[in-house]
Amino acid sequence: MAPLLTGQEVAKHNTRESCWIIVHGNVYDVTEFLDDHPGGSKIILKYAGKDATAEYEPIHPPDAITANLPKEKHLGPVDLSTVAKVEVRITDEEKARLKNVEARPPLSEILNLHDFEAIARQVMTKNAWAYYSSAADDEITNRENHAAYHRIWFRPRVMRDVTTVDFSTHILGHPTKMPIYITAAALGKLGHPDGELNLTKAAAKHGVIQMIPTLASCAFDEMVDAAVPGQVQFYQLYVNKDRNITKKLVQHAEARGIKGLFITVDAPQLGRREKDMRMKFTDDEPHAQKGDAGVDRSQGAARAISTFIDPGLSWKDLDWFRSITRMPLILKGVQCWEDALEAYDRGLAGVVLSNHGGRQLDFARSGIEVLVEVTRELKARRGLSFPNEKFQLFVDGGVRRATDVIKAVALGATAVGIGRPFLYAFSSYGYEGVDHALNILHEEFTMNMRLIGARNLGEIVPEMVDASNIGSHIVSVPGDELYNSNYVDMQHAKLRKAPSAAKL
Amino acid sequence: MAPLLTGQEVAKHNTRESCWIIVHGNVYDVTEFLDDHPGGSKIILKYAGKDATAEYEPIHPPDAITANLPKEKHLGPVDLSTVAKVEVRITDEEKARLKNVEARPPLSEILNLHDFEAIARQVMTKNAWAYYSSAADDEITNRENHAAYHRIWFRPRVMRDVTTVDFSTHILGHPTKMPIYITAAALGKLGHPDGELNLTKAAAKHGVIQMIPTLASCAFDEMVDAAVPGQVQFYQLYVNKDRNITKKLVQHAEARGIKGLFITVDAPQLGRREKDMRMKFTDDEPHAQKGDAGVDRSQGAARAISTFIDPGLSWKDLDWFRSITRMPLILKGVQCWEDALEAYDRGLAGVVLSNHGGRQLDFARSGIEVLVEVTRELKARRGLSFPNEKFQLFVDGGVRRATDVIKAVALGATAVGIGRPFLYAFSSYGYEGVDHALNILHEEFTMNMRLIGARNLGEIVPEMVDASNIGSHIVSVPGDELYNSNYVDMQHAKLRKAPSAAKL
Amino acid sequence: MAPLLTGQEVAKHNTRESCWIIVHGNVYDVTEFLDDHPGGSKIILKYAGKDATAEYEPIHPPDAITANLPKEKHLGPVDLSTVAKVEVRITDEEKARLKNVEARPPLSEILNLHDFEAIARQVMTKNAWAYYSSAADDEITNRENHAAYHRIWFRPRVMRDVTTVDFSTHILGHPTKMPIYITAAALGKLGHPDGELNLTKAAAKHGVIQMIPTLASCAFDEMVDAAVPGQVQFYQLYVNKDRNITKKLVQHAEARGIKGLFITVDAPQLGRREKDMRMKFTDDEPHAQKGDAGVDRSQGAARAISTFIDPGLSWKDLDWFRSITRMPLILKGVQCWEDALEAYDRGLAGVVLSNHGGRQLDFARSGIEVLVEVTRELKARRGLSFPNEKFQLFVDGGVRRATDVIKAVALGATAVGIGRPFLYAFSSYGYEGVDHALNILHEEFTMNMRLIGARNLGEIVPEMVDASNIGSHIVSVPGDELYNSNYVDMQHAKLRKAPSAAKL
Amino acid sequence: MAPLLTGQEVAKHNTRESCWIIVHGNVYDVTEFLDDHPGGSKIILKYAGKDATAEYEPIHPPDAITANLPKEKHLGPVDLSTVAKVEVRITDEEKARLKNVEARPPLSEILNLHDFEAIARQVMTKNAWAYYSSAADDEITNRENHAAYHRIWFRPRVMRDVTTVDFSTHILGHPTKMPIYITAAALGKLGHPDGELNLTKAAAKHGVIQMIPTLASCAFDEMVDAAVPGQVQFYQLYVNKDRNITKKLVQHAEARGIKGLFITVDAPQLGRREKDMRMKFTDDEPHAQKGDAGVDRSQGAARAISTFIDPGLSWKDLDWFRSITRMPLILKGVQCWEDALEAYDRGLAGVVLSNHGGRQLDFARSGIEVLVEVTRELKARRGLSFPNEKFQLFVDGGVRRATDVIKAVALGATAVGIGRPFLYAFSSYGYEGVDHALNILHEEFTMNMRLIGARNLGEIVPEMVDASNIGSHIVSVPGDELYNSNYVDMQHAKLRKAPSAAKL
Repeated sequence: MAPLLTGQEVAKHNTRESCWIIVHGNVYDVTEFLDDHPGGSKIILKYAGKDATAEYEPIHPPDAITANLPKEKHLGPVDLSTVAKVEVRITDEEKARLKNVEARPPLSEILNLHDFEAIARQVMTKNAWAYYSSAADDEITNRENHAAYHRIWFRPRVMRDVTTVDFSTHILGHPTKMPIYITAAALGKLGHPDGELNLTKAAAKHGVIQMIPTLASCAFDEMVDAAVPGQVQFYQLYVNKDRNITKKLVQHAEARGIKGLFITVDAPQLGRREKDMRMKFTDDEPHAQKGDAGVDRSQGAARAISTFIDPGLSWKDLDWFRSITRMPLILKGVQCWEDALEAYDRGLAGVVLSNHGGRQLDFARSGIEVLVEVTRELKARRGLSFPNEKFQLFVDGGVRRATDVIKAVALGATAVGIGRPFLYAFSSYGYEGVDHALNILHEEFTMNMRLIGARNLGEIVPEMVDASNIGSHIVSVPGDELYNSNYVDMQHAKLRKAPSAAKL
Repeated sequence: MAPLLTGQEVAKHNTRESCWIIVHGNVYDVTEFLDDHPGGSKIILKYAGKDATAEYEPIHPPDAITANLPKEKHLGPVDLSTVAKVEVRITDEEKARLKNVEARPPLSEILNLHDFEAIARQVMTKNAWAYYSSAADDEITNRENHAAYHRIWFRPRVMRDVTTVDFSTHILGHPTKMPIYITAAALGKLGHPDGELNLTKAAAKHGVIQMIPTLASCAFDEMVDAAVPGQVQFYQLYVNKDRNITKKLVQHAEARGIKGLFITVDAPQLGRREKDMRMKFTDDEPHAQKGDAGVDRSQGAARAISTFIDPGLSWKDLDWFRSITRMPLILKGVQCWEDALEAYDRGLAGVVLSNHGGRQLDFARSGIEVLVEVTRELKARRGLSFPNEKFQLFVDGGVRRATDVIKAVALGATAVGIGRPFLYAFSSYGYEGVDHALNILHEEFTMNMRLIGARNLGEIVPEMVDASNIGSHIVSVPGDELYNSNYVDMQHAKLRKAPSAAKL
Repeated sequence: MAPLLTGQEVAKHNTRESCWIIVHGNVYDVTEFLDDHPGGSKIILKYAGKDATAEYEPIHPPDAITANLPKEKHLGPVDLSTVAKVEVRITDEEKARLKNVEARPPLSEILNLHDFEAIARQVMTKNAWAYYSSAADDEITNRENHAAYHRIWFRPRVMRDVTTVDFSTHILGHPTKMPIYITAAALGKLGHPDGELNLTKAAAKHGVIQMIPTLASCAFDEMVDAAVPGQVQFYQLYVNKDRNITKKLVQHAEARGIKGLFITVDAPQLGRREKDMRMKFTDDEPHAQKGDAGVDRSQGAARAISTFIDPGLSWKDLDWFRSITRMPLILKGVQCWEDALEAYDRGLAGVVLSNHGGRQLDFARSGIEVLVEVTRELKARRGLSFPNEKFQLFVDGGVRRATDVIKAVALGATAVGIGRPFLYAFSSYGYEGVDHALNILHEEFTMNMRLIGARNLGEIVPEMVDASNIGSHIVSVPGDELYNSNYVDMQHAKLRKAPSAAKL
Repeated sequence: MAPLLTGQEVAKHNTRESCWIIVHGNVYDVTEFLDDHPGGSKIILKYAGKDATAEYEPIHPPDAITANLPKEKHLGPVDLSTVAKVEVRITDEEKARLKNVEARPPLSEILNLHDFEAIARQVMTKNAWAYYSSAADDEITNRENHAAYHRIWFRPRVMRDVTTVDFSTHILGHPTKMPIYITAAALGKLGHPDGELNLTKAAAKHGVIQMIPTLASCAFDEMVDAAVPGQVQFYQLYVNKDRNITKKLVQHAEARGIKGLFITVDAPQLGRREKDMRMKFTDDEPHAQKGDAGVDRSQGAARAISTFIDPGLSWKDLDWFRSITRMPLILKGVQCWEDALEAYDRGLAGVVLSNHGGRQLDFARSGIEVLVEVTRELKARRGLSFPNEKFQLFVDGGVRRATDVIKAVALGATAVGIGRPFLYAFSSYGYEGVDHALNILHEEFTMNMRLIGARNLGEIVPEMVDASNIGSHIVSVPGDELYNSNYVDMQHAKLRKAPSAAKL
């Protein structure tokens, strides 16, 4: 066995001409890889000759570097005692953040899913927050996803014996204790060192299904290994331009027992998330200079990690997928009835009506709105009724309350995907956060099914909601500021200003 | 007769193993009752061995402890002179509140029902305010209840002799001077030491009907005793899992002359009111600890007092009710035409279209919106017209103005229930507050019936309102913040900044 | 001739038992009149034995006291040199107001009618502002009057020769240079010492018609005398319970040449204007006392001056009106097509679709909205088209721009009444203000008729507007505060914080 | 050659009776021209006897003075060394502005077109900003132009091979790399010394078409000369009352190779832009004086430069246009289907559906809204489908994102005009700004066409958008302030206030 490399040796290779980096105690020669790095060469060069582990860790799966770099560039382990510490200066901002971590309220004070977000925003790093919360363009679809649920109102039934309510169901034939699943989201370690494993554990405890993302920060096998016996997991797939890579991933997933393959179809290219991009700009950079428009600009984490995605994916690829796997195939990101019908006609197991959490095309409609047209048209054209075991409809985006889920079920969804709220839950409280989030949902389901008068999901029928306003995309006439600023608002009765002090 | 117990003796029983408390000068052994207490054991243990009267008083009817505790646990009177005073530390917050009480404006400055709320918010304890004002989840239905009235506009008639206007009517055959009644609301003593008796007295003076709540802080008999001869009262019923208790209550009510039984059907379980729950959290509690999610959390007053309610209540119970009472039966909390029709077909006297003041299911529609579909469908399916003496429709929730009531009457309601505004009235001014509130409504009715051109309620016809927008549950497209923050508002002409000082 | 009374003599009669006051140098014994005073006895008693002129002046026509008090109570002139000055203490508030008067910008900076309101609000007394600006209840109709115009959008025509545009027309057969008139509003002297005479003069200069109000602060004959030869004036009538008084007013008006009688039908009782009432409350009054609800409360100027109005006015009175005058009769305050149709069938000359500037019934619809249904129904039922010479439709309320007027004309109105903007114009700049306001409107008409492609009012046809949203009375679903406060708005690119100082 | 004039000589002619000014080193006698100056005489008199170049430069084309003043008034060159410098006092405001210019962020931080506006607002002079940003009346149409796009939502298609997308097209037969053009806007030098030339250069680089404005600050020939070989330019025409001038302009444009003539038809008179007018008022001017309403008031730059425009332009003029030019004729400013149909029937090449950026008639509808009715009616009445090569539809106003353009194309537009964003781009960064703006649009097109599932513009079909709410001009019912100010918003979980300091 070769002697350990030393930090001094590594430190010499700190240029574009010869660039070594240390990750997890091993040295890699990435000189020739620089231009192929999805995140750009600049970030690697910052660590040329140094230990890049802290930067690498949260945004790559553990095997990213070994899987992508030819064997001969794996230079072997380094004697870490000889490696200069990458000095970490704790900024004032970071100090304030750590104080906030200390100041988190007990979980008993977290009353709803919104609360996790409120805490997470204060205890996460700015970069992590920006990546999780940002969305496409003006983030209008992002917010619309939530707003759309507010256009749907209940028509509850009373005088029904709701002593016991049961909201368990089956997704693709597999049982779930609630009509939800934990949907795929990238880069879990940005929010918490255990990353997506927090979700795996909580899903097991609560009997719900986790969808494992292609772009997880945990390794795929870690997440599968962490599952308890019998725990069902799905896999979300970004299709690679190199189909061999995709084939390997899919067949490995099936081999490891994954029960459904959710192929993302709304992301031929990952969206521009300006809030995320903006987060990278600092006052340290130079001022405006003539002609500097061409300077390479940071595009946020999303673009950096996604250049492998194939924009050429099309309906024709379905036969190939069938040739490599027997897992049920579901398209994730369908946004109109025409494509849902096509998926049905081509024999798929279902579709997720989704706009990728508002992170792709701004002004894409919410999944819940699309659901209304899909059930209407598939009933009219193919005689289908929903929820339907043979062709299942899912929606995701904007869900924060069990009432949101109940609305989707009433309108025909089999289950609803929830993503960001669980990210915020583990970002602020780790596994216990996700556990508590699922407890909250469970409690809300019990309460609200009683209040709507449904003892099981089968009793949640379309007549229980009024969704007639779902398509009302209203923007008010701009305000008349001159009139409005002249108008003096009505005032309430006021307390006396100076109550006699003597009396107290 | 046994010698009086002493404070010293009682003080020894201050543990979970032996827990005595003093209420109203009597000692009770509540050791075995601890785990059955709807409000949890924690609050009782705080007073173990001590005088709990001040805490007990506002949220229990006087007989709550004697009625629920076996006779042998009633240990008899204590010598109060030997009991250590429970030291009451007046907090700064409480001092500020008491100053506000002193600073209340004279009633002559209270111009409308909103004003009571503005004063009450400043003179009530935070807990009381939280209990009265809170509602379910995001309180969207709570606010929608009021907002819905703003979607209904008048089509007034002119050139009618409105010298005298008469807005008296009959509810279940009993006269009322206005088409309103005082609806049931729990825990009146939170707001004022006389609790619901303030309502009884004012109802008598103004010739309107009070609906007595199951969860009053005054004893049922107190409220009946306080009525003047001939004063009509209704009774609101939460049905107990133990039907014998319910039977006793109902038959006692009938025996005491109650004229109508309003069975609450929208509360198989009392709602989560997060604003109320949040009020209980303090900075004194420990910070977030790993695994503390399971810690018992306070659920606000509503949950604490309501665990006896039977979620199993169903249509089948109606025969039983008919077997125990001859009072007219009305369902309170109907929320769609289908259930109103069912109630009609089963021969009930009427329904209250209500969502429990927005305190149960968020996104339940307002009573006034449901009224429109109920009258339409019952006309189409059973040929009924409204208001209808045989099957009466009531609505409650969100009413603040006589114009709101007039809208409901035009759309077919016999009368409208008003709750919170009267609570705020007595919380800020006691009986005189409720009296003044009813005066305001009386004056508004006179004015507005003249202005709408109706001399009596019979002349308030559906054509007098335009309710065509009642079902428009609009949520605007989220704002384009980049565009909006670039836009500079129009400015008015401005005064000169420096008028010549010499001139003044 | 009797010797002059002295101030000393008058000063002795300063009690409820014997109450004399001085107005305009004459002494009146008002002892027996105290309880009949529409404004209450309290305000008179404040001046018992004193000179009340300054208080009396702005809110009574000059002959109010002589016309209402029996001759024998007119005690004759007082020697003013012997009368103690009513000491006027200039408050800090008044000083600030007078500074504002000095600081008014030149009229050349007043660009639109909104600007007058912005200035008036700062230079008027609080009481005057409250009286002019206040409206009924929550002032929702008041603001809706303006908002409704914003739901109507133009469909302009191009490629028309609009070198010259002409927006003159006829109202009841009389020429006006613009399709507007100055509508009646009470108490002009609250805003300016010349009161309504400002309007008379400006109307003459601009060739528009003034409607003289019953409740003017100037005497009727003053306003008629101030007219130039041939100047047309209308008269707005509140019908008195004592029809002889009304008969006298009407016949005097006709004799003086008034060309149209606008009978107010939307005010059987004058509305409660809480903003105006609230203005009267001061911290000087005692705090809340038990039982003080009954204390007489000030009801604002409107109620004080209007108790004579007959709520018994009805369609039956029309024959009587025809028996006493040959002036054309117009009903002012019609609010639905049914009453407009009735007015047409009974042979009236027209109706004003109005809700009294939002000062009467809250949630009455705007005149412009009612106009749409009136023209539709009168066309369908009587074959009428509008504008129509035989039966003229007018609207008022909320108008601030010539575009508002053009919308009304397109929808069938003959002309539009404008009130408050002219009050604000003279309150801030006297006659010159009204003159300038009419100049602004003239300029706006010229511009906007060109831009809409209409050379005269006849070319302003219904197809030029889209009023399909006029009836959309939308109230949005209440906001989800938890979600909204979690959302972090998008941010623009930012300037660098610390540009190198050296460079400048 | 005559000897040079001296500054001293010129300085004597500094009165209304004899007024000389210096522009670009030449002396002009403008005494007789004073009253004909579109911008009024006042501004000229300010420079009587002085060098007016700095004031003249940004708002006149270079040949304005030589073209408008008779030859004999051109007095010849002045010896500039003898001319007193017009002292330029740099105000604090100007200093702050110059600091802002220094502090501009690098272009790499400009992520979207909104960003240019955010920077431009801070680095432009107030006057320039006011001229560019202001619009008609209450600027409601101005903002509606942008808002209308938010009522249109996408129905994207998935599973299409979008590896390559192509968004090039042809406008009037000429190729463009994007379905946009740079529309005409006046006074480019207000924002940047190179004015419209910035646009010419960037258009060339990006293969898009510039529409040259009549009211450019650069000379027409400058802009044509600056074009690269083969670069296509259009010309926007304000038709002069003197048709000979128009004829000269048009024929010169055609001779210089202009490929399309866009005749502005929505501006028979240029609109009142109050924000621009208000900008001119200062506290230096005298206070309000009786009778000063008639004082000449500044009307902003727009009115000053536009008095030559002929309000008599009409359909009859089209034959004359055809007689003087063979360029394709397009009407710019059509606002309803009737006029679009007329244009089609008269054989024009197309229309621009536009309201002049909201700068003319307030409450004119947005171009995108008009587009919907135009395509519907021209299909119904003439069987046309769109986009259509023979009769092309363009829209402009409110566009900020490629998604806006894609919506217009889906609804039938051939291309979309973009104006203000490019003005803001060069006002903040000169040519590089426009270049970067076009880069941003290019990147947005690529992304969004992939996400909508269209490989070329032909695949952007009407079914890809839901424009059913385009005509919803909603103004909400005014708020109930009393209710709203009583309501206490929901609060999130809060961090503990005092985390133990010891731990950090």
